[in-house]
Formats: sequence, C-alpha cells, structure tokens
Amino acid sequence: MRQVEKARFDDGFQEQLTELMRWRRDVRRFRADPVDSGTIRSLIEIAALSPSVGNSQPWRFVHVASSAMRETVIASFERCNAEALQSYDQERARLYARLKLEGLREAPVHLAVFCDEQTSDGHGLGRRTMPEMLRYSVVAAVQSFWLAARARGLGVGWVSILDPDEVRHALEVPSAWTLIAYLCVGYPIEAHLDPELQRHGWQDRLPLDSIFEERR
Amino acid sequence: MRQVEKARFDDGFQEQLTELMRWRRDVRRFRADPVDSGTIRSLIEIAALSPSVGNSQPWRFVHVASSAMRETVIASFERCNAEALQSYDQERARLYARLKLEGLREAPVHLAVFCDEQTSDGHGLGRRTMPEMLRYSVVAAVQSFWLAARARGLGVGWVSILDPDEVRHALEVPSAWTLIAYLCVGYPIEAHLDPELQRHGWQDRLPLDSIFEERR
Repeated sequence: MRQVEKARFDDGFQEQLTELMRWRRDVRRFRADPVDSGTIRSLIEIAALSPSVGNSQPWRFVHVASSAMRETVIASFERCNAEALQSYDQERARLYARLKLEGLREAPVHLAVFCDEQTSDGHGLGRRTMPEMLRYSVVAAVQSFWLAARARGLGVGWVSILDPDEVRHALEVPSAWTLIAYLCVGYPIEAHLDPELQRHGWQDRLPLDSIFEERR
Repeated sequence: MRQVEKARFDDGFQEQLTELMRWRRDVRRFRADPVDSGTIRSLIEIAALSPSVGNSQPWRFVHVASSAMRETVIASFERCNAEALQSYDQERARLYARLKLEGLREAPVHLAVFCDEQTSDGHGLGRRTMPEMLRYSVVAAVQSFWLAARARGLGVGWVSILDPDEVRHALEVPSAWTLIAYLCVGYPIEAHLDPELQRHGWQDRLPLDSIFEERR
C-alpha cells in the first residue's frame, strides 16, 4: 500500500533520459571484455519492472552460455541471412551484403528472451481481445533492459534474422515459450549517435509529420 | 558519420533511471488538467528515437481529440469489459468487477498507436523470418513514450480491453495499420510504487528465479 506523493524527476534528468534514448543504438561490434554476471542479473531485475498485461510478467530470460547452443543460433542466422540476401535485387543486394547486422560471434553475452504463452499469472486480464499483449509485455521489458544496459555503457543488439523455432529447440525451452528477442550484449567498440542503417544509406529517419496525426 | 567516444551516464543517473522504472505505473486515475500539445509532440519525438527493425520506424501516433471518436472507443471498452467479466467465476469475478482498469473518461489525452504493416521503410530488413518485429518496434516506442512521460510527471495507461478493429474503424486510419496500444495520458491523481493489480490482490510480483535461467 505504498503511496508516495513526491517522485520528481528534474529537467536535468529529463534531458539525460533523452540523451540516453539518442545513444541507445543497436550494437553489432563488441569488445571481447567479459560482462559481469551480476550486472546481467541486475539489468533483468530492472527490466522486470516493466509494464505487463494483467501484471502477468510473461518474460523469460535465458542466458546462453553454452558454446554448442550459441553455434546453433549462429548457424540459424547464417542460413536466414543468406536467404534474406537472395530476396534483394542488384544495388539493394550489394548494400545488404555490406551491412554488419549482428555481433553473435563477438558478443560475450547472448540473452534469449521468450514469452511464456501459457502463464497463468495475470489470470488472462487484458488479453481477451488482444492476446498479443502478452508478447508486447515482453517487448517492453526488452526496451527497458536495453536502456538500462546503455546507461551502464553496455551495448545491446537485437538479432531477428533467425528461425525462432530453431532457437527455441536449440535452447531446450518449453514449447509454450515464444522467442521474442535474441540479444547480443557487451561493451561496444565504438559509440554512434546515428543508427547504423542510416549511416550506411539503408534507411533515413522519418520526419514527425509522417508519424503523427490528429483527429479533431 | 557522427562518432563520439564518450557518452557516459554516471551512477546517479543510473539510480534515477531505475527509480523512473519503478515509478512507471499504469495510471487509471487522472486529474482533469490539460496536457500541453507541445509536450505530447516532444514525447512522440523522443519515442521515435526507439529501435525499429531495419530502421523502419513503423509507429503511427494518432491524437484522438474528437469526442465522437472517444465515445466509440469507450463503448468498445465497455462491451469488451462486460464480456471479460463474464469469463471469470465467483471470487475472481467479484475482484475483477472492483478493479479500475482504465481512465478513458477522465484522461485529457487519448493517443492511439498503430503499426503501419505495409510501410516500405526499412526495406523488409530483419522481418523475413520474424515479421512480428514490425509490431514489436512500435511496442518499444510505446515504452519509451511511457518512461519519458513519467519523467515529466505524466501518467500513462495502456488500455487493451478493446476491439482493435473497432478502434481502427472509428479513427479512420488505413486498413494496413494494426492497433498496438491505446493510451490514456494525463497528470495522475496519486502516485504509487506498486502496481495497481498487485495492490488489489490480483497478481503479485514474480521472483527473479522464476523468470531467469542459464544454459551452460
């Protein structure tokens, strides 16, 4: 029953938070330095403060330290990425081939994040008409993890060029768990303010008026 | 090509960020005070700094200021909520009926957040094997919006007890847009550190060992 009247975040904090969001990049170039396992646990505890539908907390974090499992995931990426390259034509294919899209080999930490689709926690509240809310809750936790990691100088890269079922089998998790995110975590080699895909001419930022409308 | 070596966030900031995540509650009790439209635009600009698959930026924010449209959304909630109540038995149903699950009538700002499923931005990168990444990108932006809003003292409530197609029709958005989140935004009446659903005995927090595993 904790109710507290005052939790204020001043202008300085608000500016720093915006800076953090600017600096939160998808990192694909990692230093080999290890990441303390206590840090990973702390970040997961922070991520678990995220909103979840019906307070269901359906996030399941799996730290993939097994070399054999990591290799299976890397093989899945390599196959899916080769197929993706085939889907592009000419100039776009050449550009795609030059992009570095993940740091699976270099990242000291692999973290797979699943959604437990059969959790009874939350008692189904809020997901009758939008069952996808369970998975969305896990995504919100991933974004919290990402921001908290960056505040500690850690880079995170989200790899989606994977076969999610292959990853689920490789990691031997329950069949009711859906892969939401496969994260590479480690200290970045370099820091950038612009997205890697913008820097390399794949996709620019959109202006506000193309993502915001009003209904009067 | 902006590369900057140093963007450091000190221990004090890291602690405040964790505090922010603790204070980020799903708010359902709003004061009537208006929210400056410039603030909403700023928050959307911050949300748009979020990660998106292939830098596709598929988030589409619609500020719902029309009373008629708001009423249609409220009617959708009321119908869906009555149906949800029917799905619970006895004690759970009595508890459900006592919960306040949204602040649609009181909230000065309604913001619907959609995913443009047909955007060509991002050129399909990263969503061949996981097409859901497009929607997940929008969820990450919602979480950024939520945190940035809370840092400014604003409360956000995510209402998912709605028929998403009904909302899409009511707001007259393209058929290729999927409703991700319907947000109530305003200044909260009270501030709590514990989730409303925990406080009222619906669902407690889970311990770390039930959401974290290792594969060695």
